[in-house]
Amino acid sequence: MYSVSVRDHFMIAHSFNGDVFGPAQRLHGATYVVDAEFFRSELDADGIVVDIGRAAEALRAALAAFNFRNLDDDPVFKGRNTTTEFLARVVFDRLTAAIRGGELGAAATGIERMRVTLHESHVASAAFDGSLSLAR
Amino acid sequence: MYSVSVRDHFMIAHSFNGDVFGPAQRLHGATYVVDAEFFRSELDADGIVVDIGRAAEALRAALAAFNFRNLDDDPVFKGRNTTTEFLARVVFDRLTAAIRGGELGAAATGIERMRVTLHESHVASAAFDGSLSLAR
Amino acid sequence: MYSVSVRDHFMIAHSFNGDVFGPAQRLHGATYVVDAEFFRSELDADGIVVDIGRAAEALRAALAAFNFRNLDDDPVFKGRNTTTEFLARVVFDRLTAAIRGGELGAAATGIERMRVTLHESHVASAAFDGSLSLAR
Amino acid sequence: MYSVSVRDHFMIAHSFNGDVFGPAQRLHGATYVVDAEFFRSELDADGIVVDIGRAAEALRAALAAFNFRNLDDDPVFKGRNTTTEFLARVVFDRLTAAIRGGELGAAATGIERMRVTLHESHVASAAFDGSLSLAR
Amino acid sequence: MYSVSVRDHFMIAHSFNGDVFGPAQRLHGATYVVDAEFFRSELDADGIVVDIGRAAEALRAALAAFNFRNLDDDPVFKGRNTTTEFLARVVFDRLTAAIRGGELGAAATGIERMRVTLHESHVASAAFDGSLSLAR
Amino acid sequence: MYSVSVRDHFMIAHSFNGDVFGPAQRLHGATYVVDAEFFRSELDADGIVVDIGRAAEALRAALAAFNFRNLDDDPVFKGRNTTTEFLARVVFDRLTAAIRGGELGAAATGIERMRVTLHESHVASAAFDGSLSLAR
Repeated sequence: MYSVSVRDHFMIAHSFNGDVFGPAQRLHGATYVVDAEFFRSELDADGIVVDIGRAAEALRAALAAFNFRNLDDDPVFKGRNTTTEFLARVVFDRLTAAIRGGELGAAATGIERMRVTLHESHVASAAFDGSLSLAR
Repeated sequence: MYSVSVRDHFMIAHSFNGDVFGPAQRLHGATYVVDAEFFRSELDADGIVVDIGRAAEALRAALAAFNFRNLDDDPVFKGRNTTTEFLARVVFDRLTAAIRGGELGAAATGIERMRVTLHESHVASAAFDGSLSLAR
Repeated sequence: MYSVSVRDHFMIAHSFNGDVFGPAQRLHGATYVVDAEFFRSELDADGIVVDIGRAAEALRAALAAFNFRNLDDDPVFKGRNTTTEFLARVVFDRLTAAIRGGELGAAATGIERMRVTLHESHVASAAFDGSLSLAR
Repeated sequence: MYSVSVRDHFMIAHSFNGDVFGPAQRLHGATYVVDAEFFRSELDADGIVVDIGRAAEALRAALAAFNFRNLDDDPVFKGRNTTTEFLARVVFDRLTAAIRGGELGAAATGIERMRVTLHESHVASAAFDGSLSLAR
Repeated sequence: MYSVSVRDHFMIAHSFNGDVFGPAQRLHGATYVVDAEFFRSELDADGIVVDIGRAAEALRAALAAFNFRNLDDDPVFKGRNTTTEFLARVVFDRLTAAIRGGELGAAATGIERMRVTLHESHVASAAFDGSLSLAR
Repeated sequence: MYSVSVRDHFMIAHSFNGDVFGPAQRLHGATYVVDAEFFRSELDADGIVVDIGRAAEALRAALAAFNFRNLDDDPVFKGRNTTTEFLARVVFDRLTAAIRGGELGAAATGIERMRVTLHESHVASAAFDGSLSLAR
């Protein structure tokens, strides 16, 4: 299996609901350094997994909607805790939509799996990985 | 699949038996920077894989038994080479016991798999990953 | 010149005032990974720059006041932009006070200079360094 | 599953063919920092996945053939784009040959899978992983 | 002293002249991950060392002239070895010109010193730092 | 000022004397990842600070004397605590001797200053820097 990974980041404010979160129930924030890794069994005719430039642009676009925002104000996240693992899934879903929408180019249709990792500090990260059922 | 990863470290002395180890047969030591990654298919009701604070504490507790020790003196390791890959498994087993013992909280019962990575330098690391058969 | 450096982090929300900040004028947040480096010309009788355990505790204490907070709500920062470089100075001043208050132990009186670096992402950081005029 | 990973690097010049590569169609170059990770289900009698010293030497040897070269001049790569993902596979194949040739020692026959990752910058990497069908 | 640092990268081909360079006399290449650090004694009225967005853009612009190029073909470098330390100075000079040209904004006139570091691999880097005599 | 930095590592056992060290008074160990940075005002005729290959070899040789050793057994360190900051100075002194002994080549006589940093974990490091008074 081949893969290509690109990195970007975004910076947000949010708060959590639930005793398990302790002081993180207060409004605070985070920098998330994001790795998006794209997997496929065979390279395309150009010898690539995906156009790395378009992958980087798609990741930037996926993060731009959150960047410099207070996630508590976003109706999309109403009633949800925007934990690092939850946000990894959100970015995964946005990149899946970008691939299906053709934003990563024709070659990207060969992508079979993705892994999105959000590093929230030098000691903690979270990830979501899954297959890309393009028929979904 | 979702995952959350936490990082900590420990510092030990040890020596190895066997020609394959060359100069590492002498008493020497290492800093191990440890990443413990917890995997599960679905988030719990709070939107988390595991309480990251309790995961960090459990990792710290798992490493505390070795920290600032000469592993050659520990009867548990009698007759074994405490290689990086071997120690990755030891930490894995201790974290498994911690999960089963409830130290990571009720949510942690949903953890299906773990991966423990020990970085011994900027150029070498070892890992053990496996499923968490909680019935074992 | 000898130095010792310890690392910790904190996670905050804040916003900035001024056109220069563009979208960062909105309420957002950041993880700051902090390196505090302590300098002195000669080691003490124990062969250290500073008790590294107490240095780590002092850094943790200095950051605890901000951790999981919205800095916009802190009257101390009223009318100030809590930029990364500004916060580097704030942490510097808190560590200076800790040293003078004896929190880092008697050996720490030999510290002549400090450098505090805040990493806000994988591509940006800010720092403040200065001498420790203990008579100030 | 156990694994051991070693890191080295190589520095090459090359160019790509195809509109998808944009400015990378020009002759340019890259430093590739390479992680080679070796997987096996059980440790050998010495408690290791592979002799880490021999693994590091095998990786160094695998990279030496390319190091300080213009890949466009290598007849082996004639008509191929030496993308990061393509080169990950090339290194994978060379390490597979090294294992089969006995260069990593008898213990290495237990290696079941490898993952080779090439980091081309602080924001991009590519990898190839696969099983080691030693009968191939 | 305050500072702000931004990171970017560029990828080039080149070769060196001189026995001291050994195999690096052959045409090869490198990824340079570049940190540009800007120093000043006092923050400006907005509480910043420099507009970090403009600093990042200026760094990108400074590197764009080299990116995806064979430096051996650039008449500017005729008769010079484009070593990592030499290139650190070249980037330093370009950023100095950008500051003087107003590309980093009015606030940047307060910048007193810069340090430019080029990381060529995980084990080697070079840097140039100097004061910014704006009258020069 | 120009500089070039090279990285290597060594792995040792040791123990400390003094209440300030707490559990580190027990026999334990560490991996030290070492950065040796060489400074000079002007590049030599080849356009370099120092032959990076010879610098890497000199660093490797300086560390080889300690690697895979118990420092408590080394008579050189009798009655001294081999703290990270102390060891940074030891490596500094060995590299100084190597430069004076001609091991880094004729160009190295231009080196004016060095900084040696030992990273003992992902959260702690120590360094020693000083001028190279070659007449000493």
